Amino acid sequence: MAIIKPSPISGFSEYSPAIQVRAQAILDSIRATFELHGFCPIETPIVERIEVLLSKSGDTDKEMYVLKRLQADDSQEADFGLRYDLTVPFARYVAAHFSELQFPFKRYQIQDCWRGERPQEGRYRQFKQCDVDIVAIDQLPLAFDIEVPLVVMPILRALGLDDFDFRISNRNILDGYLAGLGLKQTQEARRALDKLDKIGADGVADLLSSMGIGASIIDKMLAIGAIKVRDLSFVDQVRALGVEHELLDRGLEDLQYVAQACLQEGHPEFLFDMSVTRGFDYYTGTVYEVTWNTYPELGSVGGGGRYEDLAGNYINKKLPGVGMSIGFTRIFGKLIKDGKIAEPTEGTTKFLVMRMSDEDQLAAQEVAGILRGRGFSTEVYWTADKAKKQFQYANRKQIPYVVFGTEGEVKDLRSGEQQSFDPNTFNPQ
Amino acid sequence: MAIIKPSPISGFSEYSPAIQVRAQAILDSIRATFELHGFCPIETPIVERIEVLLSKSGDTDKEMYVLKRLQADDSQEADFGLRYDLTVPFARYVAAHFSELQFPFKRYQIQDCWRGERPQEGRYRQFKQCDVDIVAIDQLPLAFDIEVPLVVMPILRALGLDDFDFRISNRNILDGYLAGLGLKQTQEARRALDKLDKIGADGVADLLSSMGIGASIIDKMLAIGAIKVRDLSFVDQVRALGVEHELLDRGLEDLQYVAQACLQEGHPEFLFDMSVTRGFDYYTGTVYEVTWNTYPELGSVGGGGRYEDLAGNYINKKLPGVGMSIGFTRIFGKLIKDGKIAEPTEGTTKFLVMRMSDEDQLAAQEVAGILRGRGFSTEVYWTADKAKKQFQYANRKQIPYVVFGTEGEVKDLRSGEQQSFDPNTFNPQ
Repeated sequence: MAIIKPSPISGFSEYSPAIQVRAQAILDSIRATFELHGFCPIETPIVERIEVLLSKSGDTDKEMYVLKRLQADDSQEADFGLRYDLTVPFARYVAAHFSELQFPFKRYQIQDCWRGERPQEGRYRQFKQCDVDIVAIDQLPLAFDIEVPLVVMPILRALGLDDFDFRISNRNILDGYLAGLGLKQTQEARRALDKLDKIGADGVADLLSSMGIGASIIDKMLAIGAIKVRDLSFVDQVRALGVEHELLDRGLEDLQYVAQACLQEGHPEFLFDMSVTRGFDYYTGTVYEVTWNTYPELGSVGGGGRYEDLAGNYINKKLPGVGMSIGFTRIFGKLIKDGKIAEPTEGTTKFLVMRMSDEDQLAAQEVAGILRGRGFSTEVYWTADKAKKQFQYANRKQIPYVVFGTEGEVKDLRSGEQQSFDPNTFNPQ
Repeated sequence: MAIIKPSPISGFSEYSPAIQVRAQAILDSIRATFELHGFCPIETPIVERIEVLLSKSGDTDKEMYVLKRLQADDSQEADFGLRYDLTVPFARYVAAHFSELQFPFKRYQIQDCWRGERPQEGRYRQFKQCDVDIVAIDQLPLAFDIEVPLVVMPILRALGLDDFDFRISNRNILDGYLAGLGLKQTQEARRALDKLDKIGADGVADLLSSMGIGASIIDKMLAIGAIKVRDLSFVDQVRALGVEHELLDRGLEDLQYVAQACLQEGHPEFLFDMSVTRGFDYYTGTVYEVTWNTYPELGSVGGGGRYEDLAGNYINKKLPGVGMSIGFTRIFGKLIKDGKIAEPTEGTTKFLVMRMSDEDQLAAQEVAGILRGRGFSTEVYWTADKAKKQFQYANRKQIPYVVFGTEGEVKDLRSGEQQSFDPNTFNPQ
């Protein structure tokens, strides 16, 4: 009889109901945080035109999924592809809905993305991202570079990250520094330094050396990459390296402004780390990266930064922005694997209304209706089974309270205590 | 500069932020209703193995989307396809997670589905369904056939359906009736009768006639198809047609039991309609169909029924179930188009904390933190701009309250009234 394997496809996670309830609670809390800070929700379809996806994809081309009709001709060009991040659809959305938006436009977006990665532990082909961005027309004040970490911080706590660093830098610091050193290959050198966490100082030195960069400049680069502090001393430390450039000055000034405000909020996780550069070329100022120290092998679990222009591919408006993206699935998957997502100790149903006779269906429904009206999840047992069987159901589903349909009594299955009951006033613990 | 068209792809809807806020509010309320009735959430990946999708697809093969890697060889077989409903993934899920579930398993699932339809008004290629099902092992008591309409009814109200019929029948009535008439082509005849709403009695008669069915039997079929009542009189009306069959007896008895309980709840929309049969062959008892009388052209906006076995393709267990599916996107799309989804009269942000000087950022953030802690969505203005500009921002975003950072005053922008303000105690209206 059993002919088809029912396991989910590798790289596409699927949770048990108990874990799903926990995932939802965390996602609800993330959503609430965004909304409490005045960010409004958007959702975009799973697909975008191929040309939209290719306009910014960089290295991800080969991992992109496209849609075809099952019975379409093989030679037919695919028109649509699945989004691989939320930034590309957001840019297109802002252009498409430009006249309906209020600027500075503050949006959040919690949706799945897809990449055709080879299946392996901790790698997902479907993964949920939580993105937050602010975009303005022509100019975006630097104060928004402070707002982003302040809204993301409680979200990292809601996700249950225990030991993490919220690393902030400003790309102009490194770019100005490299320019001050007279280096031409700024972009390549920056990408090499970005690998510091993965391949260490020696690895980065080898890489830079293979690019034809001299030893003294490599030393200088490793020196700035080593500056990671939890206060404003990064300014003096960078200055002490003795490199001068106008872009470096601007980067330091901007980061100092952002850092000062962040520090005032008293979160100990802020780390001003000059080695943070982020991979994408489009960042032009502040850059963010969150690393979860418990699991360094995960790399960054969140990141983002400031960009000069969001939607230039679509409309003739300059729309600078700043934002971050948090990798929900990657974090949640690790928490599950490590047993840190406890299954709820009681079911989501609060009350089970027992059935005492074939005639009390309506009365039982009425009691349930009152309890639901007060916000308590309530089930009515489906038939006038033996009491023992009804209790068994409540126990298996971890329903804490069993109501004796028409008898005005309730039993707390955790304590065994039984007491009189009025559905209008009883307060469950 | 503008080179790529930013409009969303036809058949894939995308809402403005104001409409998205309304969609979320309705979806939240649907979710809350399911949870208040003790249904737990599940989510499945967007893709299933092709063999899983094809196992039940019927007519939908040609509309199925499959995933391919962008740079994959054209000749490569597609392994995964997008789900076209939530029933197929649910069946696979129950088999895959069998040991983790408590039976009777009550689940809801609110997710998107995809069909490669030709784009046209009111047709969606991506659409959200709200599904609810109860499955048991071996036997599922008939009482659950009552629970399904009772949980779905408040959801139809939350969706804002003004004038609708919640039509219920039992497939054994029609099948038993046709058997009692001595008809062999039960399935084909049932499908013809299912078209009654679309092509009328004459159309159905022609169709039946073309199948070689005689005029007297056609009259009998149209007679039972015309029975639509809001009370228990369907029993006598069907009996009065003078057809006898054991399956018909069972169908009538079961529908009477379900109808009696539904009527007790006092919803005027229940209609016991003997022409309801549902297209899918797998229904074996109670069948449901919701029609929105304001928009008959939509056909059914929700439907479902009882099935004998959910997951026989995957595991060697008999799992009977009963459930319904509500077409969120189809309903919501119509409400938008008809101007029935009012944009919120005020923004989602409740308070704007003004900035009075360059030094009051921290103080303003503190006020905002207190308000957010009390559950009020609050923004801090980003810089110490002229008061007029800050008010303009609040007005454009329809933020009702503007707080004067450090001065202990608040202004209600709707009434113009200004009063003293303590973030710990002030209650917005």
